[in-house]
Amino acid sequence: MGLTQSIKINENDNVAITVNAISAGTMIREDITANQDIPQGHKIALCDIPEGETIVRYGVPIGYAQQKINKGDWINEHMITLPNPPSLDEMKFAVNLVTDLPEPPKKTFMGFPNSDGGYAGTRNILGIVTTVQCVTGILNNAVKKIKEELLPKYPNVDDVVAINHAYGCGVAINAPEAKIPIRMLHNIVKHPNFGGETMVISLGCEKLTLEMLLDEEDITHENVVVFQNVKGHDAIMAEILAKAETKLKKLNVRTRVELPLSKLLVGMQCGGSDAFSGVTANPAAGYAADMLVQAGATVMFSEVTEVRDGVHIIGERCINDEVGKKLIAEMKWYDQYLENGQVDRSANPTPGNKKGGLSNIVEKAMGSIAKSGRSPIVEVLSPGERPTKKGMIFAATPASDFVCGSCQLSSGMTLEVFMTGCGTPYGLALAPVIKVCSRNDMKDMWQDLIDINAGPIVTGAATIEDIGTLLFNEMIDVASGHKQCLAEKYGLHNDFTLFNPAPIT
Amino acid sequence: MGLTQSIKINENDNVAITVNAISAGTMIREDITANQDIPQGHKIALCDIPEGETIVRYGVPIGYAQQKINKGDWINEHMITLPNPPSLDEMKFAVNLVTDLPEPPKKTFMGFPNSDGGYAGTRNILGIVTTVQCVTGILNNAVKKIKEELLPKYPNVDDVVAINHAYGCGVAINAPEAKIPIRMLHNIVKHPNFGGETMVISLGCEKLTLEMLLDEEDITHENVVVFQNVKGHDAIMAEILAKAETKLKKLNVRTRVELPLSKLLVGMQCGGSDAFSGVTANPAAGYAADMLVQAGATVMFSEVTEVRDGVHIIGERCINDEVGKKLIAEMKWYDQYLENGQVDRSANPTPGNKKGGLSNIVEKAMGSIAKSGRSPIVEVLSPGERPTKKGMIFAATPASDFVCGSCQLSSGMTLEVFMTGCGTPYGLALAPVIKVCSRNDMKDMWQDLIDINAGPIVTGAATIEDIGTLLFNEMIDVASGHKQCLAEKYGLHNDFTLFNPAPIT
Ligand SMILES: [Ca+2]
Ligand SMILES: [Ca+2]
Ligand SMILES: [Ca+2]
Ligand SMILES: [Ca+2]
Ligand SMILES: [Ca+2]
Repeated sequence: MGLTQSIKINENDNVAITVNAISAGTMIREDITANQDIPQGHKIALCDIPEGETIVRYGVPIGYAQQKINKGDWINEHMITLPNPPSLDEMKFAVNLVTDLPEPPKKTFMGFPNSDGGYAGTRNILGIVTTVQCVTGILNNAVKKIKEELLPKYPNVDDVVAINHAYGCGVAINAPEAKIPIRMLHNIVKHPNFGGETMVISLGCEKLTLEMLLDEEDITHENVVVFQNVKGHDAIMAEILAKAETKLKKLNVRTRVELPLSKLLVGMQCGGSDAFSGVTANPAAGYAADMLVQAGATVMFSEVTEVRDGVHIIGERCINDEVGKKLIAEMKWYDQYLENGQVDRSANPTPGNKKGGLSNIVEKAMGSIAKSGRSPIVEVLSPGERPTKKGMIFAATPASDFVCGSCQLSSGMTLEVFMTGCGTPYGLALAPVIKVCSRNDMKDMWQDLIDINAGPIVTGAATIEDIGTLLFNEMIDVASGHKQCLAEKYGLHNDFTLFNPAPIT
Repeated sequence: MGLTQSIKINENDNVAITVNAISAGTMIREDITANQDIPQGHKIALCDIPEGETIVRYGVPIGYAQQKINKGDWINEHMITLPNPPSLDEMKFAVNLVTDLPEPPKKTFMGFPNSDGGYAGTRNILGIVTTVQCVTGILNNAVKKIKEELLPKYPNVDDVVAINHAYGCGVAINAPEAKIPIRMLHNIVKHPNFGGETMVISLGCEKLTLEMLLDEEDITHENVVVFQNVKGHDAIMAEILAKAETKLKKLNVRTRVELPLSKLLVGMQCGGSDAFSGVTANPAAGYAADMLVQAGATVMFSEVTEVRDGVHIIGERCINDEVGKKLIAEMKWYDQYLENGQVDRSANPTPGNKKGGLSNIVEKAMGSIAKSGRSPIVEVLSPGERPTKKGMIFAATPASDFVCGSCQLSSGMTLEVFMTGCGTPYGLALAPVIKVCSRNDMKDMWQDLIDINAGPIVTGAATIEDIGTLLFNEMIDVASGHKQCLAEKYGLHNDFTLFNPAPIT
């Protein structure tokens, strides 16, 4: 009995979500009894809602009643009409710039400084970037050999990673949108975890030329292997191994030093969200993000289709018109991209989201943007662009976990925080990923896959601030190499996945 | 000196290609002297060609002179205006159905029969298909363990392969074009090399549900692992290994038997083509294809953007209007797809193609379609569809080597023949790939990566029929497991790459 049976977020809400599965007839609040069995995390009507009336959660309209809804009814996705997305032509910028951010418990971390003066590394990795998928077969075998035979000789190097992808040839390289995958590859070469050591594998006849991938001064004999210039398989293998060893020697002298958090670039995203994500994990991440920003760090949040319905809220946090206009441009680009594919933002929610109680994209969006906290938004990035400002940044990317993570890596992310409701073993080869779940029973199910449990917020056993601070400290520990996240412990690596909106030829 | 300095293909041609690099002043034919240095494989004018006049190779117009061209001039890509593509609205079908195909030296091979009565396997593989990229990290580690700990116990099984991909979630699953990646995944589960053993790894909350991937009767506890139903990392690993072992036991009893070639499904494609590809490797492959068809086998050729400019020639070979109309539909779909991306078929040729003497897509196309030989075309497939007819089939796919190969695998291909000019180490995990090069110096450079050299055709040391017969015999040997191709020997595996023309969300 009692109030922990359901969670109402905003005083204007006319729905609450159930903390656990509830049987018909259960009293969930003083004057409200469930009229049907209601699954965990799903919505219950707190009052009668006439047909066509607004359904309010997070204090915002998440849709309209398709039929009369009675107090105590379970409200599922089929009972809600999706509202129109917020207009992009009537946005207000810079009207909600908060300054009262929470004080961080620490302001430094132990990172690998980079000589370019940019963000520091959180790991020390030999990254081998490819121009084209053609080289993947030989390169993968070479990397296996490098890890077995060479890497043990260089104990300060954490890993050797081939950045394979399906781009580079058989693509419309001059299509307008080809700039996105090309930018992603160009920028991944300079990832802060690679320590400025460039190693690129090329076939020789591909469309994505070395000149498109590298700055001119980086196209050197030491940095590049071109298969078609080498006399056969065994010679190619030998050349890759020899060049890798030269790079490993250099990387092996990198050492961690205490650095201000202004040298840390964190990415945030969510995947497999449920109705608790927006109440527990994402707000806790938002609190941690606010502390990072207060400490001078840079934090990116992303996932355009999950921001689209809260764009008016994000717009108000943009520090000026220039930032706001780029936000609109990215949103409009995505609206058009989806329209070209004959879909719209309603294509985002998954069966898992819906089973978890998220009826539509508006409800999902309001939970998703909670991970960005309250800080002013200082910059908006196109997919894979590198930040030029420090603070909270909206990095426009698809919501697809792999594409989002890869875009954030291309932007230079060295640590990701990933919120999940249903659970995912997601991990990246190029940066550690801390996974935060939204519910106690998720953590119970996957003890060895979920790093941080935000579930205690549901029951009142912890506050958003408690879990946010816990997460902040975990981020510093993992970034500093004092601790491995669970995805690292098990070596869970999702593919580097380019965003290519241009045609394949 | 003499006639082997240049190759003229059709008596109507007003250009020839150079057999080797030629210096200015060299006499290449009785009355023709090179006016400039000409790279190997590039075109030389056999007569004066006034501005605007047609340039003819393969007996077809490959474009128009942008300026006056003198007899003996080097003709490069900047001197040729691309003609309009053949109209798709004035096609003639079934007017060139040949019956005089070459007799094959053999009509059987040693394959693994399948109980569904369909195509036989050429290899015996445990294929583990994923619904979504989320599962990749754990699955890759599991496959490593399976190969180390279990596979050695089952010596009749050739390999264990995870079919990872970037699809499954974070995609517009209801977009019209989503049917292509979904079909590819649905069909890859039933690949002939998997022996009817289905093993699928799912997360649990993804958009691509088990119901979309599998037939209802295949969704069983034995066939499927759903991560979100299993209690954590170690338990998931244990369940994958246990289910894999059950499958390995069953696969281990498969044996090769002598089968008619009607049980063999071969795919053909080319990549990194040069001006010799259309003179040597592709025509030899076409001759071998004709022998396969004559023996009752099924042969697919693909690469829409490389067929587009020869579509009128292909159309005449379609056995009836129904097949022809599907050909047009696939071509129109691709024209529109490219137009949506603000490009056209001219986006196909690569820097390598151009360096190799292929000035534009028309010239490339005429060489590319040579690999289909002369047989009647009995069926046209949409990307990833499975054939219902035996004989020569046009399987519409992108020309991208990885996407084309993956589409052909989804169509059930168990052996691929791959023609190359510049050279690629291309290989597939699910089927052997025989690589055929177009030039002697390519084979000299990559002795250990090129299976068959069609270069002797250039110098007259071998005929198209000689190399075609050699290739036919190699195909039978490799399909029968009597021989490994070089990509297999070194374990060169390119990624399974889905064709997804629909948006990412
Ligand atoms: Ca998300
Ligand atoms: Ca996501
Ligand atoms: Ca074996
Ligand atoms: Ca080709
Ligand atoms: Ca190709």
